[in-house]
Amino acid sequence: MKAAVLYEFDPSLTSPQYVRYEEVPDPRIEKTTDVIVRIGGAGVCRTDLHIVEGIWRDKANVQLPYIMGHENAGWVEEVGSGVEGIKVGDPVICHPLVTSGHCLACRRGDDMHATDSKFPGINTNGGYAEYLLTGARSLIKLPASLTPKDVAPYTDAGLTAYRAAKKASRHLLPGEYAVVIGVGGLGHIGVQVLAALCAAEIIAVDRSDMALGLAKECGAHHLVKSDRTEVDQILALTGGRGAEAVIDFVGEGDAVAKGLAMTRNGGFYYIVGYGGKVEIPTIEMITSEKTIVGNLVGTYPELVELMALADRGLVKLATREYRLEQANEALHDLHHGKVKGRAVLIP
Amino acid sequence: MKAAVLYEFDPSLTSPQYVRYEEVPDPRIEKTTDVIVRIGGAGVCRTDLHIVEGIWRDKANVQLPYIMGHENAGWVEEVGSGVEGIKVGDPVICHPLVTSGHCLACRRGDDMHATDSKFPGINTNGGYAEYLLTGARSLIKLPASLTPKDVAPYTDAGLTAYRAAKKASRHLLPGEYAVVIGVGGLGHIGVQVLAALCAAEIIAVDRSDMALGLAKECGAHHLVKSDRTEVDQILALTGGRGAEAVIDFVGEGDAVAKGLAMTRNGGFYYIVGYGGKVEIPTIEMITSEKTIVGNLVGTYPELVELMALADRGLVKLATREYRLEQANEALHDLHHGKVKGRAVLIP
Amino acid sequence: MKAAVLYEFDPSLTSPQYVRYEEVPDPRIEKTTDVIVRIGGAGVCRTDLHIVEGIWRDKANVQLPYIMGHENAGWVEEVGSGVEGIKVGDPVICHPLVTSGHCLACRRGDDMHATDSKFPGINTNGGYAEYLLTGARSLIKLPASLTPKDVAPYTDAGLTAYRAAKKASRHLLPGEYAVVIGVGGLGHIGVQVLAALCAAEIIAVDRSDMALGLAKECGAHHLVKSDRTEVDQILALTGGRGAEAVIDFVGEGDAVAKGLAMTRNGGFYYIVGYGGKVEIPTIEMITSEKTIVGNLVGTYPELVELMALADRGLVKLATREYRLEQANEALHDLHHGKVKGRAVLIP
Amino acid sequence: MKAAVLYEFDPSLTSPQYVRYEEVPDPRIEKTTDVIVRIGGAGVCRTDLHIVEGIWRDKANVQLPYIMGHENAGWVEEVGSGVEGIKVGDPVICHPLVTSGHCLACRRGDDMHATDSKFPGINTNGGYAEYLLTGARSLIKLPASLTPKDVAPYTDAGLTAYRAAKKASRHLLPGEYAVVIGVGGLGHIGVQVLAALCAAEIIAVDRSDMALGLAKECGAHHLVKSDRTEVDQILALTGGRGAEAVIDFVGEGDAVAKGLAMTRNGGFYYIVGYGGKVEIPTIEMITSEKTIVGNLVGTYPELVELMALADRGLVKLATREYRLEQANEALHDLHHGKVKGRAVLIP
Ligand SMILES: [Zn+2]
Ligand SMILES: [Zn+2]
Ligand SMILES: [Zn+2]
Ligand SMILES: [Zn+2]
Ligand SMILES: [Zn+2]
Ligand SMILES: [Zn+2]
Ligand SMILES: [Zn+2]
Ligand SMILES: [Zn+2]
Ligand SMILES: [Zn+2]
Ligand SMILES: [Zn+2]
Repeated sequence: MKAAVLYEFDPSLTSPQYVRYEEVPDPRIEKTTDVIVRIGGAGVCRTDLHIVEGIWRDKANVQLPYIMGHENAGWVEEVGSGVEGIKVGDPVICHPLVTSGHCLACRRGDDMHATDSKFPGINTNGGYAEYLLTGARSLIKLPASLTPKDVAPYTDAGLTAYRAAKKASRHLLPGEYAVVIGVGGLGHIGVQVLAALCAAEIIAVDRSDMALGLAKECGAHHLVKSDRTEVDQILALTGGRGAEAVIDFVGEGDAVAKGLAMTRNGGFYYIVGYGGKVEIPTIEMITSEKTIVGNLVGTYPELVELMALADRGLVKLATREYRLEQANEALHDLHHGKVKGRAVLIP
Repeated sequence: MKAAVLYEFDPSLTSPQYVRYEEVPDPRIEKTTDVIVRIGGAGVCRTDLHIVEGIWRDKANVQLPYIMGHENAGWVEEVGSGVEGIKVGDPVICHPLVTSGHCLACRRGDDMHATDSKFPGINTNGGYAEYLLTGARSLIKLPASLTPKDVAPYTDAGLTAYRAAKKASRHLLPGEYAVVIGVGGLGHIGVQVLAALCAAEIIAVDRSDMALGLAKECGAHHLVKSDRTEVDQILALTGGRGAEAVIDFVGEGDAVAKGLAMTRNGGFYYIVGYGGKVEIPTIEMITSEKTIVGNLVGTYPELVELMALADRGLVKLATREYRLEQANEALHDLHHGKVKGRAVLIP
Repeated sequence: MKAAVLYEFDPSLTSPQYVRYEEVPDPRIEKTTDVIVRIGGAGVCRTDLHIVEGIWRDKANVQLPYIMGHENAGWVEEVGSGVEGIKVGDPVICHPLVTSGHCLACRRGDDMHATDSKFPGINTNGGYAEYLLTGARSLIKLPASLTPKDVAPYTDAGLTAYRAAKKASRHLLPGEYAVVIGVGGLGHIGVQVLAALCAAEIIAVDRSDMALGLAKECGAHHLVKSDRTEVDQILALTGGRGAEAVIDFVGEGDAVAKGLAMTRNGGFYYIVGYGGKVEIPTIEMITSEKTIVGNLVGTYPELVELMALADRGLVKLATREYRLEQANEALHDLHHGKVKGRAVLIP
Repeated sequence: MKAAVLYEFDPSLTSPQYVRYEEVPDPRIEKTTDVIVRIGGAGVCRTDLHIVEGIWRDKANVQLPYIMGHENAGWVEEVGSGVEGIKVGDPVICHPLVTSGHCLACRRGDDMHATDSKFPGINTNGGYAEYLLTGARSLIKLPASLTPKDVAPYTDAGLTAYRAAKKASRHLLPGEYAVVIGVGGLGHIGVQVLAALCAAEIIAVDRSDMALGLAKECGAHHLVKSDRTEVDQILALTGGRGAEAVIDFVGEGDAVAKGLAMTRNGGFYYIVGYGGKVEIPTIEMITSEKTIVGNLVGTYPELVELMALADRGLVKLATREYRLEQANEALHDLHHGKVKGRAVLIP
């Protein structure tokens, strides 16, 4: 099959060719619960740039060359002998993690913390290709209203935003505020999920007017241009107290310190973006009684919930399509801030 | 009345006399809800040392000279004209915060986040004295089983430990682990509260054998001597995964980094002690999906709950009594690690 | 002042004159926290009809003659000597319960379960009058967008619907269903609150086409005409399983049995309306693992939350105005199903 | 193999022989995830008597003859081709439900509400036999401290009690009360679980002095002899208000009405036993704001949690052993109240 293969890291992201489009062997069914999916679309993600930079090298422990692409959807091509309830030709979206379902985390529904998982596109071959090897437990059948290439980025970008926004929605009450820092591929989903799941007033923060325009379309009630004064603007909007929830889709540079400063005493700061560092004196944590929450993708049931929102049109994903052989173009466009919404590679 | 008064900060804590024992004017009822309490005992707290050091200078915005002592219990001496349900002579323990009860936080039961509070001993005169001015909303009547001087430190040391341990107990399930870092005045209460409120296995970490002995008496199931290997010891005890809850009563030095490292993926790190700094890359927060929780004393209902535990003997507080004129001796003993349990000043 | 006074019970509701419009003594400030409110509007409620019938006689233990009217809003007329933060002329909505704030339920924010409360209009004189005696803790200042006569019914009808719908919204996930049985004065608020607080699909059930039309305007996604088949219709809409939440605003006749039958295994049946009886074998409760939840008005903070929704236009209340001397006409119109939305008496 | 087989229902339970001890065909592996367990012990349960009576006939839809026995533990005898992580000879306890793990309930960890389950001993052949056919997802390996015949009743009796008591422990605070009605095979586990998981005061209610003695050993703080006055006794113990949680292990006769009457306003009544009926006017549910909760066994992770308690000796199960051919004697002894703790059949 054809695939876009990563051969070496590029810490400065200056190479014109991050990946090589070439012929590789097809994946094969090995376990009775394996499934091969014909890719309909594979999302291109900032995490892919971070992989190219080498940031995930230690965490993911992947051997090059390998195939990136952790946001996948398509059609079932072949199933292992023990697979039930899924048949060849079914349109499916792929939960990013492949789990066996045996560990206690899986049994509690918390499959993101499985002790026994693979993460295609991160630590094994992913979906920048014609076919993907995954597992039966990772697949959700799509309703007729949704097509694979349109929903692929929901599996990570969407799901991560969904999980963080859902956590926030569980404690946000009418009269309270939620700040969304960074209205890109994830953030614009985060705004929509908040609008669907709670009645807090949503404040979007971004340095880009285009992003703030997108935030408004997505349901943000207040728009704050990110400059030196965004903390003061948030405080002014919230009666001087800050927001009960701040979801930080940037997670680097001064976003972290500002995000914490925008969080109300007793409030929650959700980290989704990464690259930077949390630095806060313990006395600040004590006196403010703030909570800092890390967020990692979401569970299988949460992807089902997100598909229910998408099916009803409560969440929409802005995508831009590229052919698989344009993988480098897509990655560069993302790197240079030229993608509104989310890039998707189509084989 | 007699009081131990703080006249100046001492950043190095080297002065032999932090406070001056002297005659000061008696407090007076000003508002209809004011109450004057005759002090039965005032706890001496590490926070008092931090106040002397000047660490709280900016946060508390207090003018010297003033009277420290935020852990108070005694008997009602005089009540304002609007006070109901409390009468002169009642033995009482004082919730550390004085609130009006009008703001939304108070109305939700979350009085620690009142927008309209005073904190005697922190930002107004406290209980290193014969009498204390407080408010009717701060008082809890003591059952016959409890006397003021024995329970005074529960108001802050006990209540803070209670709140953090209670938060942890809400998610700790049988088969899971709770680490308590630092088994001093707060930590030994934390161990007892965990033992009373959940069935997690409790691991106590301290550098002192005396403290570990106290931890064992308090109900800890595993004792870990704090040295260069405590993280590895915790991982060994928890199947390599770390603990679902880590409550850090130290909060300075390498306790913070180690505390975070002992926390299981998806787990909670509770900060109670302070003086140090949380420093963690956002990518670590993402991939581990840990939560960092600040903890500030506790609410009035939580102090009622803690008194119920104390009344039934489920929580015991080791105290050491000093006369009020020995305030400096008590503070120095605390500073030099010579107090087992908790020092209490008795006028 | 003028008031509409209840002199005797009428179990059959056949009397043309339930109440007598007449001159009565003005209320007077007695306690330091008392407040007198000049009534801007008083909601007329099905509970008032139940009071006239004598259903509340034992529960409320009220002595006739007295003044009904438990849904009140207006302007502050006079305040007791200990009242802070509220001044004469302030437009206010009155939480229906008057509490002292001392008991543990109040301190936990759960003032509906205060051990020390009065309920004007239920067990003491209410707002079918020019002036009402209430307490400072019951008052919420209105934003400029809201006027007393338009919001009065929120204090009970709205607040009760809000609390039940909020409870449901805490567990309703995307892809799940909420049934609202009875889209009258309370139910139409319930639909709007669900739509604001969660992303469940809302199914409205009513025997009246007018009510179903109102449900649709309020945000219901499916309309089910109440006849012999409504349980089957709900099962058909929910894949044969029933709804995760059923909120029953009728609570009498066959609504209860049907409501329970519409509830999915593991789901929640919320009772708001009353007059009937829950009857279910314990084996049914075991095998279905359903939960049956009683609902009583809501807390002060919940009324603040509801006002935030109203202020932003997320909840609207259909009212029909009557002059205070038309109290009997309003009550009869309500009794005969002629009021769309909610009747309000204006002095 | 040998088995004790049920051939016909006996509504009056008067037959001396409910089941027939005889030779039957061995079970066989059919699906790749099937497992055959050699029975070490099978609990005898009041539900078995209800099955003999025919009470479960409609719900379970089972065809006679069949083999009862839904509380099973033993050793793995044979595994299907797709089974991982479990090997022949492993000592195991069997979660009572056999699920495929595909449905959304399973994926959320809520396997008791699986849409695709079998319940051996209820709707398919169970463990009153030498061998049992179950599934890989149902098995939990036993620690060395626990042997199959001693833990078998935990799978249903223990797990049901655990789940109900765990639910209650999530909201029970120090200073609050939990009533346990009926201290038999389930109730005595319920008392121990409450004592392990929370600090509420536990009140045991039973008509038998032997049962109350067992309650005391299990950790109950107050013992109430069940007669005409038990509601008054509970009110007297709880300051006139009733208990925040009432767990009813009887569920028939007047236990239900009394259980609801013992429940505090705003409190929770948990139904575990069955045979009777809940009957309560909706107005009572409204004004009291009580919650009625049905309870059905527990999840696989909850059985893991219960095994952790048993492993640490925090929960102990009183059992009485019978040989498999004594099945009728065991059932009759249970029927006539002659079993202290729990009967177990050993092949
Ligand atoms: Zn991604
Ligand atoms: Zn797993
Ligand atoms: Zn480039
Ligand atoms: Zn202190
Ligand atoms: Zn306040
Ligand atoms: Zn010294
Ligand atoms: Zn009403
Ligand atoms: Zn109260
Ligand atoms: Zn059983
Ligand atoms: Zn299932």
